[in-house]
Amino acid sequence: MSTQTEESLDVDRLRSEFPILEREVGDGQRVIYLDNAATSQTPDRVVDAMSDYYRGTNANVHRGIHHLSQESSVSYEEAHDRLAAFVGASGGRSEMVFTKNTTEGLNLVAYAWGLRELGPGDEVVLSEMEHHSALVTWQQIANRTGADVKFIGIDDEGRLDMDHAAELVTDDTEMVSVTHVSNTLGTINPIADLADLAHDHDSFVFVDGAQAVPHQSVDVEALDVDFYAFSGHKMCGPTGIGGLYGKEDLLATMEPFMYGGGMVRKVAFDRTTWAEVPEKFEAGTPPIAEAVGLAEAADYLDDVGLERIERHERDLVEYAMGRMAEFDDIEVYGPPADERAGLVSFNLEGVHAHDLASIMNDHAVAIRPGDHCTQPLHDVLGTAASARASFYLYNTEAEVDALIDAIDDARQLFG
Amino acid sequence: MSTQTEESLDVDRLRSEFPILEREVGDGQRVIYLDNAATSQTPDRVVDAMSDYYRGTNANVHRGIHHLSQESSVSYEEAHDRLAAFVGASGGRSEMVFTKNTTEGLNLVAYAWGLRELGPGDEVVLSEMEHHSALVTWQQIANRTGADVKFIGIDDEGRLDMDHAAELVTDDTEMVSVTHVSNTLGTINPIADLADLAHDHDSFVFVDGAQAVPHQSVDVEALDVDFYAFSGHKMCGPTGIGGLYGKEDLLATMEPFMYGGGMVRKVAFDRTTWAEVPEKFEAGTPPIAEAVGLAEAADYLDDVGLERIERHERDLVEYAMGRMAEFDDIEVYGPPADERAGLVSFNLEGVHAHDLASIMNDHAVAIRPGDHCTQPLHDVLGTAASARASFYLYNTEAEVDALIDAIDDARQLFG
Repeated sequence: MSTQTEESLDVDRLRSEFPILEREVGDGQRVIYLDNAATSQTPDRVVDAMSDYYRGTNANVHRGIHHLSQESSVSYEEAHDRLAAFVGASGGRSEMVFTKNTTEGLNLVAYAWGLRELGPGDEVVLSEMEHHSALVTWQQIANRTGADVKFIGIDDEGRLDMDHAAELVTDDTEMVSVTHVSNTLGTINPIADLADLAHDHDSFVFVDGAQAVPHQSVDVEALDVDFYAFSGHKMCGPTGIGGLYGKEDLLATMEPFMYGGGMVRKVAFDRTTWAEVPEKFEAGTPPIAEAVGLAEAADYLDDVGLERIERHERDLVEYAMGRMAEFDDIEVYGPPADERAGLVSFNLEGVHAHDLASIMNDHAVAIRPGDHCTQPLHDVLGTAASARASFYLYNTEAEVDALIDAIDDARQLFG
Repeated sequence: MSTQTEESLDVDRLRSEFPILEREVGDGQRVIYLDNAATSQTPDRVVDAMSDYYRGTNANVHRGIHHLSQESSVSYEEAHDRLAAFVGASGGRSEMVFTKNTTEGLNLVAYAWGLRELGPGDEVVLSEMEHHSALVTWQQIANRTGADVKFIGIDDEGRLDMDHAAELVTDDTEMVSVTHVSNTLGTINPIADLADLAHDHDSFVFVDGAQAVPHQSVDVEALDVDFYAFSGHKMCGPTGIGGLYGKEDLLATMEPFMYGGGMVRKVAFDRTTWAEVPEKFEAGTPPIAEAVGLAEAADYLDDVGLERIERHERDLVEYAMGRMAEFDDIEVYGPPADERAGLVSFNLEGVHAHDLASIMNDHAVAIRPGDHCTQPLHDVLGTAASARASFYLYNTEAEVDALIDAIDDARQLFG
């Protein structure tokens, strides 16, 4: 490990690039932003990259001859290569499609592949911890095709039950769709093992990487997954853009999802042929400024160092869970700190998660209450809602202390 | 008409809000940007609105309790109301869905309505001047459902043949999908008449408003259309966002398109119920910063005045067509200037449109050559490609003169 990656983060310096972290909310308290699993904050250089784009380069991409269009096209295409490299895909833009978010990545594959290829007798295997983006999408596409959906269970600490996975994945399985990191439990799933299992049964593997790509170094080729989706706005990038990695031969042979300009080769009134990847999957004017911002976000995260970010978040989650363990009225969901990503969902006995979040907001502590788009998982956990604190590179132990103090205040109020 | 709208635009003042128009390209010439039908430029206040959002408000929407999420949610929801009002929809957010672009609006209706409702014997009526976004989408959805697609022809000057329309639209017609303004011909189609015709046969009407909303005051209720789609990046707004208007009862009863977080009410492992409009059609984290930018763009256009913009563009296109008419080697496609929007597609005899655009680029004149995503229309016109100059509020007659000079230079070079 290099000296650089052994250094811890200079959080004070990092925070200066995020002016929103100085924002005062309510009665003049500085915001304590612990809602990073919902959306991360955006460093100045990413915002500036997009502003500079609009003020200096802005033009539509594809086939433009004029200077601005050439520059814009090059930036847009290179952003694909940049994000492909960021997740370890060696095929560059032929393996990286820009979507509007992780959800579109799931729908793209479910519609373009699933709606055509699935049928009665086919099975799609998910996990009980899937986000609605995967769960509802595969459920509905399966309903429409007559396929079945099965769910890999979890153990008492929120780990995937791999014995159950080995039972569920059979030669009838056509797709295994699992999240890399649970947005509710923090669980980091054994993706490489699941990919092996799936491939042993000639099934494809789709991984929802929305909670992984921002927080750890991801290598889709080492994991040997077929599809891998993520969002820009959770990785210091903009809203309005996400990435879908797909193995080159899969994307090349798949039918398109949405139709329109830019994704065609030859169009007649009665028939159309398709452009190459990624254009084939990017109908209409794409999120160009957002692609520029996303590439800058990837550079930013690499400059800070994903290993350092991962270690920093693990330190924070360990600290937070240690402090929570001091109280026997706090129920924490998911595995031990050393097995999870930098988020923790919990409940305070006798206080609804929404009330808890409201009291925290009075302390300027921004957490998220609710089902975190995992209602079925919450049914498994036996609670309708939880409060989730999620950390990122700019968070501090002092902010965790503020979280614990706010919980204590709620305890006093409701106790 | 108010005094304000009778005044012409103060173009010099307007241009100061678009720093890119001072950009020098090539060998130090200031760019002459005549590619507005592809993408418009973005005024400072729109760029600043998004930067301010990232630096001061950024948070995910829906169900958040904390201050930033509340602010972000309100901004995002109000942006729907703002855009609904901008196109004359009185139902606010219950009639306005945010998409990523016009193309997604078309695909949303084609997939969510067409793929379920169309079948053998049903017909979809388009026009020969449709953009690939409508043409390919309905063609492909019709192919998959066994429905037929028919195309309303055009006359020699690029007007829609309304007699042909009256023949084609029958009781078998389920959808009439036409563009409001042709992105190639500039033709402004008689949408209200087409809507009457369609409704007389119990057909729905979808209008591609990508080239209309930025340039004229649109009133979807006066036009009595069922669906109306447009894009942010062509109306001084950001990339990555578009709007889809739909009549309230239609959107309320339609099945969703993409599935995921935010568009559900209750999710179990085996079934899901849907949220209200617009959430039902906005799966996943939406383009939040882009919605803020788009609402600011709508305010900007209203502040400048759409009637004044429309008149300014008509003056420019009249001037441009008048100057082109001085030369008998320039073929112009589409109707006379007083019947069209502010764009003109043309060819110079003996010079391919791409070569013409390249020579123009040497003069810093940014136009777009190609098929403009209307390959079948170009087949009808009898040419593979055309050169298109498209104007907006910040363009000037001097820039039209530069265009004509550049054409003359091409004539000399190839003559």
